[in-house]
Amino acid sequence: MQLSWAVFLLVFWVYPGYLQDIPPRDDVARVARFVANQCGWASMATISSRDPVKGQPFSNTFSVSDGPLGSGTGVPYMYLTRLEISVQDLQVNSQASLSMSLAQTDFCRKYAYDPQSPLCAHIIFSGSVVEVNDTEAVVAKNALFLRHPEMADWPSDHDWFFAKMNITQVWVLDYFGGVKTVTPEDYYNAKPYKLHLGKSAMKCPLRFCDNIQLWSEVYFHSSGA
Amino acid sequence: MQLSWAVFLLVFWVYPGYLQDIPPRDDVARVARFVANQCGWASMATISSRDPVKGQPFSNTFSVSDGPLGSGTGVPYMYLTRLEISVQDLQVNSQASLSMSLAQTDFCRKYAYDPQSPLCAHIIFSGSVVEVNDTEAVVAKNALFLRHPEMADWPSDHDWFFAKMNITQVWVLDYFGGVKTVTPEDYYNAKPYKLHLGKSAMKCPLRFCDNIQLWSEVYFHSSGA
Repeated sequence: MQLSWAVFLLVFWVYPGYLQDIPPRDDVARVARFVANQCGWASMATISSRDPVKGQPFSNTFSVSDGPLGSGTGVPYMYLTRLEISVQDLQVNSQASLSMSLAQTDFCRKYAYDPQSPLCAHIIFSGSVVEVNDTEAVVAKNALFLRHPEMADWPSDHDWFFAKMNITQVWVLDYFGGVKTVTPEDYYNAKPYKLHLGKSAMKCPLRFCDNIQLWSEVYFHSSGA
Repeated sequence: MQLSWAVFLLVFWVYPGYLQDIPPRDDVARVARFVANQCGWASMATISSRDPVKGQPFSNTFSVSDGPLGSGTGVPYMYLTRLEISVQDLQVNSQASLSMSLAQTDFCRKYAYDPQSPLCAHIIFSGSVVEVNDTEAVVAKNALFLRHPEMADWPSDHDWFFAKMNITQVWVLDYFGGVKTVTPEDYYNAKPYKLHLGKSAMKCPLRFCDNIQLWSEVYFHSSGA
């Protein structure tokens, strides 16, 4: 019993570090999954459908979530409205690119990495943005509303819908030597966190209760419960 | 003398707030200049020139600077290398879009604004990215190296050059009701900071010495020196 409590407290103690530890830089797919899970927002590039920039690239900011911090699925979900300027672009051409950078987290500040440095790891998804429905819309809603609770109060007359980036290519800038690519298959198979126990907690209604689930899994597993 | 010291200390005391105060939301050009000056990095959308995503939009992260915090010029300067994947896109098609969001600063966290909320103000530039030379390259270097001191040590064999976004349209998402547009002329004429004294300190070699210049200007002006 004493040992199991020691393990439980140890997991509590190391947990913040566990959530912030970037995987080894040469483990590119894991790095990509780590960045995707750590980032709460992304920049989306579309081909503009609006004058006077029709046909030109257009960059915009969107909140994203692939699930709880520490146990995301890698799928970048978004909550969109057709009233939004970039979403109107997507209705004409659904091809898009999402970039996410650890510059938006404390990671790069902590290590004093410039946002443009590859050490301040950033990733780029190429693909298309598609609406999700039925079961996947529930998954998307849980993933998004957990990390963006304000979304639950966004105006109901805005025709909101859940969407995801259908990834065809992952580009990773995480170290010197130029961009690296990861296939969607390798990306989704990667385990970004060392202590990842393989059980999603996305149905958990409370912020951080996925962490409690993780701790309790470690505790009960180690205590033989 | 007592009064002038009081003014000097007051400016010291209010200065941090002055640097963080967003202009009134309906003063759109000022908001755009404020966001551009507060943000140290941007997401750039280009049209990809690389297989297998040739012709598709591509999003990537770049450090930017329009000058010292509190007295920028509004011109988003960048330090680029032709080895970089998005810069290779620009060599084929220089049309680009830069988005910057206060989500990257403490502002949105302080007020608990979701990154996708328009209250977490974000701006988008449309235009093209062009190399700058001669006198403007010196201005760009001072603006960038002041806010990104790591750049001075980036590898010299990477063929770095200074560039700027040649802005043709500014899009502002800073309040409910949809995107607003600002002409480049109105954008460059706007004064984002209440206490802006109109004197650039971009040649100042020290981080924050522009602030000292501002304080001293207020002090000497108020004391009649």
